[in-house]
Amino acid sequence: MLSLSQTTVSRALNGYPEVSEETRRRVMDAAKRHGYRPNPSARRLATGKAGMIGYVMPTGAAVDIDPHFVEFLSGLGDYARSHDLDLVLSPTAADEEETTYRRIVANKQVDAVYVSSPRPADRRVALLNHLGIPYIVHGRSEGLDFDYPFLDIDNEAAFHEATRLLIQLGHTRIALINGDDTQTFAIHRERGLKKALAASDLKLPVHRLISVSMTEENGYRATRRLLEHEAAPTAIICSSLIMTLGAVRAIRDLGLAIPGDISLVAHDDVFPWLKPENFSVPLSTTRSSIRAAGARVAERLAARISGLESGPRGEIWPVDLVVRGSIAGAPV
Amino acid sequence: MLSLSQTTVSRALNGYPEVSEETRRRVMDAAKRHGYRPNPSARRLATGKAGMIGYVMPTGAAVDIDPHFVEFLSGLGDYARSHDLDLVLSPTAADEEETTYRRIVANKQVDAVYVSSPRPADRRVALLNHLGIPYIVHGRSEGLDFDYPFLDIDNEAAFHEATRLLIQLGHTRIALINGDDTQTFAIHRERGLKKALAASDLKLPVHRLISVSMTEENGYRATRRLLEHEAAPTAIICSSLIMTLGAVRAIRDLGLAIPGDISLVAHDDVFPWLKPENFSVPLSTTRSSIRAAGARVAERLAARISGLESGPRGEIWPVDLVVRGSIAGAPV
Repeated sequence: MLSLSQTTVSRALNGYPEVSEETRRRVMDAAKRHGYRPNPSARRLATGKAGMIGYVMPTGAAVDIDPHFVEFLSGLGDYARSHDLDLVLSPTAADEEETTYRRIVANKQVDAVYVSSPRPADRRVALLNHLGIPYIVHGRSEGLDFDYPFLDIDNEAAFHEATRLLIQLGHTRIALINGDDTQTFAIHRERGLKKALAASDLKLPVHRLISVSMTEENGYRATRRLLEHEAAPTAIICSSLIMTLGAVRAIRDLGLAIPGDISLVAHDDVFPWLKPENFSVPLSTTRSSIRAAGARVAERLAARISGLESGPRGEIWPVDLVVRGSIAGAPV
Repeated sequence: MLSLSQTTVSRALNGYPEVSEETRRRVMDAAKRHGYRPNPSARRLATGKAGMIGYVMPTGAAVDIDPHFVEFLSGLGDYARSHDLDLVLSPTAADEEETTYRRIVANKQVDAVYVSSPRPADRRVALLNHLGIPYIVHGRSEGLDFDYPFLDIDNEAAFHEATRLLIQLGHTRIALINGDDTQTFAIHRERGLKKALAASDLKLPVHRLISVSMTEENGYRATRRLLEHEAAPTAIICSSLIMTLGAVRAIRDLGLAIPGDISLVAHDDVFPWLKPENFSVPLSTTRSSIRAAGARVAERLAARISGLESGPRGEIWPVDLVVRGSIAGAPV
């Protein structure tokens, strides 16, 4: 028995300031023992918070949401679950994204939002900054005249290091199969590769750079195009594991060997259902868990909602370079 | 100029009955021309509807949300986007699903919910039936003592037909690599296969039936186990394209040929990023678009919210059997 009035218990559970810390702890302990969870409606009334994170989700015939999204979502859910946060997805046409942001902010549907797949000078980031709702960018924009909170991986350094290693192995013709190059992550990867080449007085001719959406089929086509060129590369860096499935198939169809004829490096977001070490030739990768990023974005959004984090704080995660059997010295 | 009072415009947009049909149409046309969308908060006040569909999302270290989910979500978003519906994901620990359903219903956070990955005698379906919120089951339960609204594909017929074709090609040792067999879809697939075998006086010995979560690695391991058995199958049916990636790798590692040594059929949910026709040997498949199912579930939920659909209506979609190069007559 707690011997407290119902009002006191309710106030303790819903975070009213007039309840003493000791009373609150007693109530919370008892509530936990009985499997009680605070009622979000009551909490909303008490705190003015919806207990919801928002995500504006572009959809439509031309938009494929890809498996990266679900893995990020898993991570977000891992954190949100244990902190009583729900996630509101607002599907939107690609050309109505800004209207949708304005709507969910105006309606106070959510306490905070995150933005994914940012582009340079991203208007969504500028808009959110203007609207004043707590937000985090997953990834980074470029060329905005203000700072903003983000979580990104170091794509430039990752692809720089992978390229540098290939150069040290004697490769001079290195190709990049990249994702959508209107997005910053792809721009940073290209930049890292080019800087590493430039440091060794090497170039990336246009025919050795291909930007496509990340499907197996596009990986296959890109690799065939690269390898059927008169100045074919001896090494390929590929921006996703799914595209690399297609790259491996193309290399096999052409009767070439990995790594004897072609060295291969892929970016690995750590999907539980497709692992680089299980490719017919285990893949060297630049590796960063997108699920961990999802959990961290949720954690930082929760901190921003409760006022524990504020200001334009950027967080950049280093990326592992994992060497496996798919790379070797350049063929002579 | 519309020459209508602000009150009339607002009532027309928010669906009040006292506005004439002609006035409503004039207002809606003008609103469309100006890119106006009804304000969900106003709509909520006017109609008592939240404009939200709910999904209780099990998550945590032991739960992998897989790519099927994102493809289903794309379809749901396709419909929801054009009908001003948002989607609320409530992440939950697997053992707290029922509590979470009770919470979102009690708080009137959402107007309707959908349930995925149903099991036999699924307690979530029984709970939703009891709680009285509009819902649709994606898939089917079994052994409940009431009818309920669902959308499912005909998994039993699909795997029955695939098995029958393999038998007609002379195969007698046919194996199944299935998904999680606590879920109804996997039970139905096994049932279809067994019925087709039984119709030809054939059996499915236990060592020829493997149920695992749908990863490339599990597909590889299952296939090795099947093919290294003394009574190895000459044909394998595989419940997902991702597992089939692993099956193909195992067959290649063992120096066997598709379809010369092993015939292979896979279930294809029609992912845009991995296509059965692009496997090294094009795959025969049972095919049904999970994105289309997502759109249809959203459409039916919207109909149930607005009262256009009610009662325990079941909808079962037939599944295509698509024959490509991965199947042939049984080796003699």
